[in-house]
Amino acid sequence: MQEINVGLLGMGTVGEGVARMLINNRELIRSRVGADVRLKRIADIDISRSQQIELENGVFTTDAYSIVNDPDIHIVLEMIGGQSVAKDLILKAMQNGKHVVTANKSLLANQGQSLFQAAHEYQVDLAFEPSVGGCMPIIKLLRESLVGNHIYSMTGILNGTCNYILTKITEEGIPFESALADAQANGFAEADPTMDVEGFDTAHKLAILTSLAYGMQINFKDIYIEGISRITPMDIRFADEFGFRIKLLAISKIGENAVEARVHPTMIASDNILSSVRGSLNAVTITGDAVGDLFLSGHGAGMMPTASSVISDTVDIARNILHKAIGRVPLLSYQTPNIKQIPVIPMEMISTHHYIRFSALDQPGVLSKISGILGNHNISIKSVQQKGRKQKGSVPIVMMTHRAKEASMKQALAEIALLNVISQPPTLIRIEDENDE
Amino acid sequence: MQEINVGLLGMGTVGEGVARMLINNRELIRSRVGADVRLKRIADIDISRSQQIELENGVFTTDAYSIVNDPDIHIVLEMIGGQSVAKDLILKAMQNGKHVVTANKSLLANQGQSLFQAAHEYQVDLAFEPSVGGCMPIIKLLRESLVGNHIYSMTGILNGTCNYILTKITEEGIPFESALADAQANGFAEADPTMDVEGFDTAHKLAILTSLAYGMQINFKDIYIEGISRITPMDIRFADEFGFRIKLLAISKIGENAVEARVHPTMIASDNILSSVRGSLNAVTITGDAVGDLFLSGHGAGMMPTASSVISDTVDIARNILHKAIGRVPLLSYQTPNIKQIPVIPMEMISTHHYIRFSALDQPGVLSKISGILGNHNISIKSVQQKGRKQKGSVPIVMMTHRAKEASMKQALAEIALLNVISQPPTLIRIEDENDE
Repeated sequence: MQEINVGLLGMGTVGEGVARMLINNRELIRSRVGADVRLKRIADIDISRSQQIELENGVFTTDAYSIVNDPDIHIVLEMIGGQSVAKDLILKAMQNGKHVVTANKSLLANQGQSLFQAAHEYQVDLAFEPSVGGCMPIIKLLRESLVGNHIYSMTGILNGTCNYILTKITEEGIPFESALADAQANGFAEADPTMDVEGFDTAHKLAILTSLAYGMQINFKDIYIEGISRITPMDIRFADEFGFRIKLLAISKIGENAVEARVHPTMIASDNILSSVRGSLNAVTITGDAVGDLFLSGHGAGMMPTASSVISDTVDIARNILHKAIGRVPLLSYQTPNIKQIPVIPMEMISTHHYIRFSALDQPGVLSKISGILGNHNISIKSVQQKGRKQKGSVPIVMMTHRAKEASMKQALAEIALLNVISQPPTLIRIEDENDE
Repeated sequence: MQEINVGLLGMGTVGEGVARMLINNRELIRSRVGADVRLKRIADIDISRSQQIELENGVFTTDAYSIVNDPDIHIVLEMIGGQSVAKDLILKAMQNGKHVVTANKSLLANQGQSLFQAAHEYQVDLAFEPSVGGCMPIIKLLRESLVGNHIYSMTGILNGTCNYILTKITEEGIPFESALADAQANGFAEADPTMDVEGFDTAHKLAILTSLAYGMQINFKDIYIEGISRITPMDIRFADEFGFRIKLLAISKIGENAVEARVHPTMIASDNILSSVRGSLNAVTITGDAVGDLFLSGHGAGMMPTASSVISDTVDIARNILHKAIGRVPLLSYQTPNIKQIPVIPMEMISTHHYIRFSALDQPGVLSKISGILGNHNISIKSVQQKGRKQKGSVPIVMMTHRAKEASMKQALAEIALLNVISQPPTLIRIEDENDE
C-alpha cells in the first residue's frame, strides 16, 4: 500500500487536533483513500508539547526546517500562525516540492498573492480550507460545488468569539465588557481579544472568500472593518423590538464591475436563518444564480472541527498525489489567467438602511432639528420612536432610515452630534434588509 | 483548449436547467476548468421540448441511444428518471467508456449496487450529487469534506413537498388535504403525490446518504417509512405548546455494528435549527466525531438548484478526465474492499420518546386505564394533559413518554385502542430529543 508522509508544523490547539485525528482515525482514512496517510514528523519550538499526545520515538522535533527539508515528506501542514516564520516555512516547503495545507488566514489575507504565485511556480498544491469557518467546507463549496454558478453575494458569521459575545448580550442583557470577560473565562476569547472583537479576523476570512467567489485579487486594506465593542444591550433590545438581531457580519456582494466587502455589526431580520446561529457557531449564506441561497453552519473554530478541515485538504492532496493530478482544482477557484482585477467600492459609497440612536435632551423641537439635518442630506426616515425613560436628563431616540449612502449618513451624524440638545455621539448600526426598498 | 463533450438525456425540468446552465454559463465554467465543457447533444422523446431553449442545429435528438453510443461524448447526464430505460442507458454509456452523472435517486436506492459495480468494471466515474438535496453538496461533503470523520448520525429534511405542506399546516392551521391542494396548485407537489407525501422519496435519499456515511450497502426495504398524510393541525398545535415542531425527517445513526435508518414525521425542539427550515427548503444536520454538528440548508429541488449540482459533478469529472484521475474519489466514499455489511436495526427495536394523542370519552377512570396499559409495557409517562374541549363526546388526551421501544408502544396502543372509552385510533408521533434521557 502506498504511503503519503505528512509533516505537521505547530502543536497548538489545531495542530494537536490534527495529530489526534491522523493518529486515531488513520485506519478510517486509509479505508477511504486507499493509501496510508502517515504523520511522520511534528515540529514545535515548545518541547513540552510533545507530551500532549502519545507519539512514537523520533516523530517530535523542535526544528521545523528539518520537516520542510525532509525529502520523504509529501505534505506539510502549517499550523503555526503569524506572518513571518510561517511564511518562510511554507515557501521553503513549496520550493522543496512539498504540498502545503495552512490554516493561516492573516497570512493568506495579507500576503496570499506571493504564496499562490510560489505554489504555481513550484507546481504544488496549497490548500486552506481550515483558514475560514473551522469545519465548514466553504472553500470547497466555492471552488467545486458552486463551480457553475455566478456568485452574487455572501453573508457570514465568521468569528465565534464575536457571535458568543453578541449572543450573551442578547440573551442575558449584560454589557459588552461582561460578555467579553465571560467569553475569556470560557475559552471563547483570547487574553488580547482585539483581532476578534474589532473584526480583523472576520475581515481576513472575508478577503479569502471574496477572492474565491468572484475570481479576483483583493487588497485587504480595501475591506471596511468595524468591530462589536460599542454594541450595547440597549441597542440589542431596541433591535429586537423592530424584529431584528445584531450580528457581526462579513458581507460581500458583486455588482457591475465592482464589489462590496465589509465587516460590521449588522441588524438582520429575526427570521433570517443567520439570526438563529447562537454562541460560538459560525455560518454563511452564499447566493448564486443557480442555487439561490445556500446556508451552512457549524463550529467555526476549536481543536477538532478545524482539524477536520485540515484532514479534508490533506486527503484531497493525497488523492491528487496518488493520481498525479496536482493542480486539479485551481487554487483560487479560477484559472490563473482568468483572475480579474475588480475594484472594491469604498464604504462611503455604499447604501444601506440604518438604525440610529440619539441621546437627546427631552425638549420640544429636538426631533425637528435632527430630521431637518437628515433631510438636508437626503436621508429619508422610515420610523422614529422615543424609547424608554430619561437617563441623566436625556432620552434615547431611535430612527430607522430608508436606504441612504454611508457618506451622507456620516456627514449628517457629525452635524447632529454638534447640536447642543445631543448629549452623546449617535450610535449607527447598518441594516441588511432582504425586503429591500 | 481542450474540449469535454457532454450529452444530456432528458429535457424535463432538471434537464432544461442543466442545458441552460451549460449554455449560459459556458464561459464561466471554461474560466474555472481551463477547458471547454460543451453540451454536444440533447435527447428527449418529446420533440416539442427542443423548443424550450435556443439550440444549435443537430444538438437535439429523440434517440437517446445515439448519445450513449456517440464516440465523441465523454460525459452522459441522465436526467430521465425511472428505473428501466434510465438504467439501460446508464449501463450502455458506461460500457462505452463514458462517465455518468445521474439525479436518479429511486434507481440508485433500489439498484445502485449493480450500477456501481458496472462503473468499477468499466473504470468510469458515476456521480450523483443531484440525487439528494438539490443544490446542497451533501455527497461531496460526505465523500470529501468529512473524509477524516467517523459519521455518527444524519438528520435531514429531504423532501420539499412535505416540508412545504407541513409549513402550511403549521402556519395556517389548515388540514393536510388543503395544504396538499395548495402545494399542487403552486407546483410544489405532483398530481400523484404518493412518492413525496408517503415518504418514499425521502427514503430513497436516506438510503444513498446512509450508504456513503458509514461505508455500507443498504437494502432499501430495510428502511422504515411513514409519511405525513395523517398529520393534523391539532397535533401540530399541541406540539407547539410543548415546544416542538413536526417535520418529516430522514434519520440515520450508527451504533455498535448496526445502523438506524428511518423516515417518519418527527417532533423536534422549536429551537433546533431544523425547525427554522420553512417551505420547500431542504436541510441536513450531519454529526461526526471531529466536526460535531454541521448544518446545511438550501433549495432541495427545482430546475436551477438541481442543475447546479449536475454541473458540479460534470466539472468534477471533466477535471478528472483532464488530469487522467478517473476514480480519484471512490464512488461510495470508501474503497470498494472496505465497504461493510452493517445490519439495519428493525423499527420495532428502536427506542424514542413519543407523543401520543388519544380521543377518549370524558369519563372518570379513563386515564388510569390508559396509563395502566402503558405501565404494563414498561412505558413511562413524562407528562399528560387533557387538551381543549369535547369533540363529539370525546376529549383529546396528550401524553409525552420517556424513551420506549417501538414494539412495546405499538402493542400498548393496540390494547388501548380496544378500550371502549377510546373513540378513535391513537395518534403516535416520535420525538427526537437532543437532551436525551
